Amino acid sequence: MIYFDNGATSYPKPKSVFVNTVNALNKFSFNSGRGGYSASVNASEEIYKVREKVADMFNFHPQNIAFTLNCTDALNKAIKGVVKKGDHVIISSLEHNAVYRVVYKLYNEGIIDFDIANFSFDEDETVNNFKNLINKKTSLIVCMVASNVFGVVFPIKKIGELAKNNGITFIVDGAQGAGVIPIDSEKDNIDILCAPGHKCLYGQMGTGFLASKDDIYFNTIMEGGTGSDSINPNQPEFMPDRLESGTLNNSGIISLGAGIDFIKSNGIDNIYNHELSLTDYIYDNLCKNSDVKLYCPKPKKNKSVPIISFNYKDYSSEKTASLLANYNIATRAGLHCSPLAHKYFDTINRGTVRICPSVFNTKKECEKFINTLKKI
Amino acid sequence: MIYFDNGATSYPKPKSVFVNTVNALNKFSFNSGRGGYSASVNASEEIYKVREKVADMFNFHPQNIAFTLNCTDALNKAIKGVVKKGDHVIISSLEHNAVYRVVYKLYNEGIIDFDIANFSFDEDETVNNFKNLINKKTSLIVCMVASNVFGVVFPIKKIGELAKNNGITFIVDGAQGAGVIPIDSEKDNIDILCAPGHKCLYGQMGTGFLASKDDIYFNTIMEGGTGSDSINPNQPEFMPDRLESGTLNNSGIISLGAGIDFIKSNGIDNIYNHELSLTDYIYDNLCKNSDVKLYCPKPKKNKSVPIISFNYKDYSSEKTASLLANYNIATRAGLHCSPLAHKYFDTINRGTVRICPSVFNTKKECEKFINTLKKI
Repeated sequence: MIYFDNGATSYPKPKSVFVNTVNALNKFSFNSGRGGYSASVNASEEIYKVREKVADMFNFHPQNIAFTLNCTDALNKAIKGVVKKGDHVIISSLEHNAVYRVVYKLYNEGIIDFDIANFSFDEDETVNNFKNLINKKTSLIVCMVASNVFGVVFPIKKIGELAKNNGITFIVDGAQGAGVIPIDSEKDNIDILCAPGHKCLYGQMGTGFLASKDDIYFNTIMEGGTGSDSINPNQPEFMPDRLESGTLNNSGIISLGAGIDFIKSNGIDNIYNHELSLTDYIYDNLCKNSDVKLYCPKPKKNKSVPIISFNYKDYSSEKTASLLANYNIATRAGLHCSPLAHKYFDTINRGTVRICPSVFNTKKECEKFINTLKKI
Repeated sequence: MIYFDNGATSYPKPKSVFVNTVNALNKFSFNSGRGGYSASVNASEEIYKVREKVADMFNFHPQNIAFTLNCTDALNKAIKGVVKKGDHVIISSLEHNAVYRVVYKLYNEGIIDFDIANFSFDEDETVNNFKNLINKKTSLIVCMVASNVFGVVFPIKKIGELAKNNGITFIVDGAQGAGVIPIDSEKDNIDILCAPGHKCLYGQMGTGFLASKDDIYFNTIMEGGTGSDSINPNQPEFMPDRLESGTLNNSGIISLGAGIDFIKSNGIDNIYNHELSLTDYIYDNLCKNSDVKLYCPKPKKNKSVPIISFNYKDYSSEKTASLLANYNIATRAGLHCSPLAHKYFDTINRGTVRICPSVFNTKKECEKFINTLKKI
């Protein structure tokens, strides 16, 4: 299989991730933070090491890393954790349903009002689009690092600066960026970063995290046993227990740590460059095919993550993906859970076929894809 | 290690669970319900098979099985999914913080009122204790199958009958029961069953589920991408998408399916009998040790799950567990996230040492534990 659906989940995982997952299944699958026997203590230590790795990679404090089921879980805990009744929220025009549906529900329930700031290929215009929507009640901006459909990157640092200067909390959805583009909570003025563990961070499915600055206080959407302050009927105030209840996915979390190690040892820039060289090649060749419709400029460093959306002939996106699947080429078709992005790029009726190479894809695979496309 | 902390998470897992987990990591770690390529379709089919297995085991419809991070996640989605402002809720006097903290938060926010029904060793008295607390606003009863601290079993069927006769929704926390005691949504009058995948069902950590009857409509606490009806800014109304957003823990879910297969092929009754024979042996020998304080009658079939709580000499529960850990015997000490249960059994200051054998423990291990205890 030629796998180009890394935007959904990365495959294959690095060997070290697999080895560490299996090792964790055998050695560290004990309740962390609860038992006093060495196996439980060892599990706690391994989990803590991953908190440190995530914290180190994105510049947070380890105790402020809460592990979640996935990025959606993290975004729900983040957004609902910080908004209050009467607040105004701004999101971007390319947000995934993991943000849009959450904000829409809060709006529908009369808790918040919200506006959508248009993306622009001009960074300053994007920032201005956010700026122009700020009002006295604006308490929160939520923005993705990069579109999961079109790969375009948001000027997170500048939007973060805008938020900071206006006393607005800034939540970043790192789904398609964390692990590809360097993200630094301080430099990028991020209050809360949410990310999946199983995409560009090369961990296993069932993993995600919420990383927050010290001074963020979360209202909780999930309460339960934390192994801490158990006599208190209230959820502990301190992180990460504030946001973590019940048994964690130890092997998944430990795999995420191995994924981060993999990125560090290979160099995030090398991974990004390799992936961009593949999207470069694909984009150039798609341009030569008059049956292909593209929607964005060629992916460029710091302006795009390695994601290309296209359509072919008069086929539905599903038909194209299905014909490619017959040749064992895995892409994804449809709306990619991002109706806003499709409305913005006028692809809402048709969706797009999405190509997301990872560090493990080769130029040869890209060639095969290009040649196969001509045949269908 | 002699592992008696199966109430936290079961260890070891059956070999078939391990093999299936590793197989799923390699073969089925693709986004289910999203891609059209065969690897994604195969992953969806494997996940669906597990929905069928869970549904079959507890008598629900497969589409009403929603997979969660853990049992706590499921309980939050269940309880917050069904209560409305002004409702009255009844929980048992032995509930875990996974229920108590959730209900307490709703109470604290002025959304619900709640009462606590005392457990009694007399089943009818327990049911009466619930009955006497029902008022016109009672919309929900939440009760565990069995106490995670003391192992005593609730008369779920009778409480379910009471709920049914009064038009009250009945949520059951199956944390310590699902996989040991047969549970049947129809026979036991259960509207929603929540359970972890990684305890008595022998799946991996990071797994749990919520199983519901057809006619339950859930308000959601998590919204996001579902791969379905993506153009709709509202979370889909249909299950399981109503309660599942973002990427699932495929390998974990598939391991849970293997865990259920293991239970079926060994016989739930055989597993239960084996575990009870071990608690029998332990209990009898603890009774002979005048330094041991026990809190409940001897575990008995259908009246207890294989859990014993005790204290030793004048030691704190933590000291006893720690001294046992020096001999490589894994138990758990403290409140076990269940302050209500400890208040009820008057162990709130000291907590207890908990022994939970699994199908993999042997009489020899129990002997060693009994003999070791005498030495500390």
